[in-house]
Amino acid sequence: MKCSLFGCSAAAQVKTSRETKGQFLSVNMAFSVGVMSAMYLTKNISGAHFNPAVTLSFCVLGQVPWGKLVPYCLSQVLGAYLASGLVYMVYYDAIMEFSGGVLTVYGPNETASIFATYPSEYMTLGRSFLDQVVGTGMLMLCILCLEEKRNTPAPSELIPAIVAVIVLGISMSMSANCGAAINPARDLGPRLLTLTAGWGTEVFTCYNYWFWVPLVAPLIGGVIGTFIYLFFIHWHLPDPDPPESLSSLSTINYNLVNKLCCIDFYKSFVISISQSLHFD
Amino acid sequence: MKCSLFGCSAAAQVKTSRETKGQFLSVNMAFSVGVMSAMYLTKNISGAHFNPAVTLSFCVLGQVPWGKLVPYCLSQVLGAYLASGLVYMVYYDAIMEFSGGVLTVYGPNETASIFATYPSEYMTLGRSFLDQVVGTGMLMLCILCLEEKRNTPAPSELIPAIVAVIVLGISMSMSANCGAAINPARDLGPRLLTLTAGWGTEVFTCYNYWFWVPLVAPLIGGVIGTFIYLFFIHWHLPDPDPPESLSSLSTINYNLVNKLCCIDFYKSFVISISQSLHFD
Amino acid sequence: MKCSLFGCSAAAQVKTSRETKGQFLSVNMAFSVGVMSAMYLTKNISGAHFNPAVTLSFCVLGQVPWGKLVPYCLSQVLGAYLASGLVYMVYYDAIMEFSGGVLTVYGPNETASIFATYPSEYMTLGRSFLDQVVGTGMLMLCILCLEEKRNTPAPSELIPAIVAVIVLGISMSMSANCGAAINPARDLGPRLLTLTAGWGTEVFTCYNYWFWVPLVAPLIGGVIGTFIYLFFIHWHLPDPDPPESLSSLSTINYNLVNKLCCIDFYKSFVISISQSLHFD
Amino acid sequence: MKCSLFGCSAAAQVKTSRETKGQFLSVNMAFSVGVMSAMYLTKNISGAHFNPAVTLSFCVLGQVPWGKLVPYCLSQVLGAYLASGLVYMVYYDAIMEFSGGVLTVYGPNETASIFATYPSEYMTLGRSFLDQVVGTGMLMLCILCLEEKRNTPAPSELIPAIVAVIVLGISMSMSANCGAAINPARDLGPRLLTLTAGWGTEVFTCYNYWFWVPLVAPLIGGVIGTFIYLFFIHWHLPDPDPPESLSSLSTINYNLVNKLCCIDFYKSFVISISQSLHFD
Repeated sequence: MKCSLFGCSAAAQVKTSRETKGQFLSVNMAFSVGVMSAMYLTKNISGAHFNPAVTLSFCVLGQVPWGKLVPYCLSQVLGAYLASGLVYMVYYDAIMEFSGGVLTVYGPNETASIFATYPSEYMTLGRSFLDQVVGTGMLMLCILCLEEKRNTPAPSELIPAIVAVIVLGISMSMSANCGAAINPARDLGPRLLTLTAGWGTEVFTCYNYWFWVPLVAPLIGGVIGTFIYLFFIHWHLPDPDPPESLSSLSTINYNLVNKLCCIDFYKSFVISISQSLHFD
Repeated sequence: MKCSLFGCSAAAQVKTSRETKGQFLSVNMAFSVGVMSAMYLTKNISGAHFNPAVTLSFCVLGQVPWGKLVPYCLSQVLGAYLASGLVYMVYYDAIMEFSGGVLTVYGPNETASIFATYPSEYMTLGRSFLDQVVGTGMLMLCILCLEEKRNTPAPSELIPAIVAVIVLGISMSMSANCGAAINPARDLGPRLLTLTAGWGTEVFTCYNYWFWVPLVAPLIGGVIGTFIYLFFIHWHLPDPDPPESLSSLSTINYNLVNKLCCIDFYKSFVISISQSLHFD
Repeated sequence: MKCSLFGCSAAAQVKTSRETKGQFLSVNMAFSVGVMSAMYLTKNISGAHFNPAVTLSFCVLGQVPWGKLVPYCLSQVLGAYLASGLVYMVYYDAIMEFSGGVLTVYGPNETASIFATYPSEYMTLGRSFLDQVVGTGMLMLCILCLEEKRNTPAPSELIPAIVAVIVLGISMSMSANCGAAINPARDLGPRLLTLTAGWGTEVFTCYNYWFWVPLVAPLIGGVIGTFIYLFFIHWHLPDPDPPESLSSLSTINYNLVNKLCCIDFYKSFVISISQSLHFD
Repeated sequence: MKCSLFGCSAAAQVKTSRETKGQFLSVNMAFSVGVMSAMYLTKNISGAHFNPAVTLSFCVLGQVPWGKLVPYCLSQVLGAYLASGLVYMVYYDAIMEFSGGVLTVYGPNETASIFATYPSEYMTLGRSFLDQVVGTGMLMLCILCLEEKRNTPAPSELIPAIVAVIVLGISMSMSANCGAAINPARDLGPRLLTLTAGWGTEVFTCYNYWFWVPLVAPLIGGVIGTFIYLFFIHWHLPDPDPPESLSSLSTINYNLVNKLCCIDFYKSFVISISQSLHFD
């Protein structure tokens, strides 16, 4: 919710001031400040889950129970909806001034992109899907390592700040194509707000019903990033001190492996790699 | 005082160089550096209070005695006045060059906005009031959690830096409408300076006596943000270890509740929520 | 690999959006975020070596065995190749739109500079070689001191962040001439990608076969920077507490000196300086 | 030396690329990165003194012996000279391309401002002197508090980073008038380089022999900032635990007071304030 509040406000500021009071970069920066604040605010309450793609990845890792996935995601969407509603109220005058009172999705005076993300016009569907998968995969890969004691952990009290820098990096480098939602809730909530606030159904139908891409692709990208992390980083890390701190994450991996047993061709592969890495 | 010194200087630099030696973003950044420096400088002397809205919120929380509120606020205004006077002296030549010697509040060569904040022309009064309430509410919500041991506390030695980042985020995302004063002293002090230094009474009368908005709205917004923090975050935090560290902030809440007993319809509501949260 | 992924993506974003969705500065920032993320991710696996110039310097210092130099470098080039391939896939539509489908190295619609570095047209060969030597030398000088306990060490958990800031500083100040590769792998990998992806052999032949400069010069610059660090900083540091923590780095220096014995005219000079500094 | 190296390089990059490869902000940022790197590099060797104004202030405070003042300052100027020489060599082609081979101090193609600072044309002498006094005063005020244990100390391992942020803040807000040298060595060294490298004596004679302002004013400003710190902050800090950690800085103050005894009218005033503050 906070990241939508900061991010959408900054987008509104830059858009309605026609880039005189900020630039593309300041939208990226405001989003990442929002992520930092939200993490400091909610870490010990909801576990700082405000991205369904991240929540899903933690479910896969066994760190969040699957039963919490849907309620978490719904509350994330609700939070983003409320935050963008607040932005809409604060920037109502500015949006009306900028758009001449006509709330549209297309054209030079469009204001829908203040809230939800839309693809650049040259994008094909598959490419924009890939864009979201890669962006979210990068996000998971970068944040999963931060708390790993066996690697170089970031100072735990500064993890929100470092996650913010990572989000800034991704949004500076992966937002040209589709706006770098990399978060289904951050995209769906504000899109629902524009639907209800006067932009009409075009926010969902435009670009050939593109809206489902930032909902589905980040979920897939997050899980892919998580697996890449497990395969290429996590199982290569040195064991710190075998008996007692038999790292609980190792256990998680085996649980994970068991859950994956339906994917037969992976199972033996995963276990053999895992063992060769752990017992060599 | 320091944040006015940095911030107004940067505003003067950007304005008088016609954005060749900085941009809107650098004004935002300089303000937040000023906040950081001022916090490192004065934390253990005046408690780093340089925002009446924050001071009032801490009074409500019982962490600053009510008797100190008015003296603190007056000295905050005085500090901002002196700082902006220094900026005026340093940038006198530049301001004269830029404005052609005519100090005005309106027009392309206006220089009043170097010091105090003024609304964008399209803003209605209610909207600009809301803008300041929301901005200051965000500020309180973001900074109140930073020292909370039961949540993810920020490293105490780096809190000034993190507050600076939060202030940067707010001023990047909430300054298009009214300049993001979110601090009555930071606004009134420099406005008094412009009154006395040659801009005339227009600095108070312009935009239909708008000057009272950044004085009153942040106070209200700060208190609202504080209550949102208490309701939605603070009372949901896990108790760390019950008996001894019976967290002093819990006590504060009950004191707070007692103070609020005039607001009858809140009292029972607050206590019941509080208990249901604490004893479930 | 990560730094290429972030950096090249940002370059693609800025280039293909014709600087509407970022600026030169955001490319620099994204590269440094990539460096930070890559360091957090791989520190305890491959020792965070993703720059052959840095790896070579650590070989010279005796902290990485010489036998690992070539495999490390090859995997660094491979990683950069894969990362830039991913960027190519994600930004394929944008690159085609921007370039009109013609992938070139020269001209206003060139897109080769998204991936590898190319010199400014006014550069002479010797000057561009010097540019890379100085840039990489600065890098080594700045990062070698960060872990030194006898100096002001940076907090070890934040070293990735501080290295990122240093890389940002170098790329803001040393990239006008030749793009600040300061990393042979980061340059060769993406250049090979452009060779195979349709830009043709021009990526190697252009500017009179300039491509070898960012391969060779950083290696030399890194070693020079390392020696400057040893001569002017390291051997001047106070011994912390003589007997037990007989700093392992001192030992390294003597190993280093032994390795350098082929360079006869240096040997006596180095030893005498070293002794005069250590036993005075 | 390092800050000149980073800063002048960035200035050369921005200037010679005609702001296509950086902006005014990136020069400010590069300078502050240079300050950070230099502090990490030299803290335990030369005490990280690369600003004569800071060195003088520490002499006044009794933390650096007076006898070291002149040698330190000379080596600081020498370092800045060498660094700017290196920048000149690296950016020689770019400077020649930009200036058409004519090295001048005035005009649209001037390149002298890459190295030393020059005032804006509208500045009067007194105003530019004040500008440097205020800028350096702010610097001292902000950095003196960072190591004070009785206040909110910054984490000692991150002080270089925080000083860098402060320098960034000052150079974003105080560089429009005269380029924010706030460091005699950083200004004189590069100015000498331009004198010897082909810009001629105009670098000293221009703007009515203005060059002495950034030499003298920062020294005065630094000392004023130091006294303001002592009067308004240092002597108001609570004593931590009286007997043993009878803070060595208190002692310093009394030494300082003794040194100031020639300034009679201050002495009694200072002591009485100091005592009233310490023994109340």
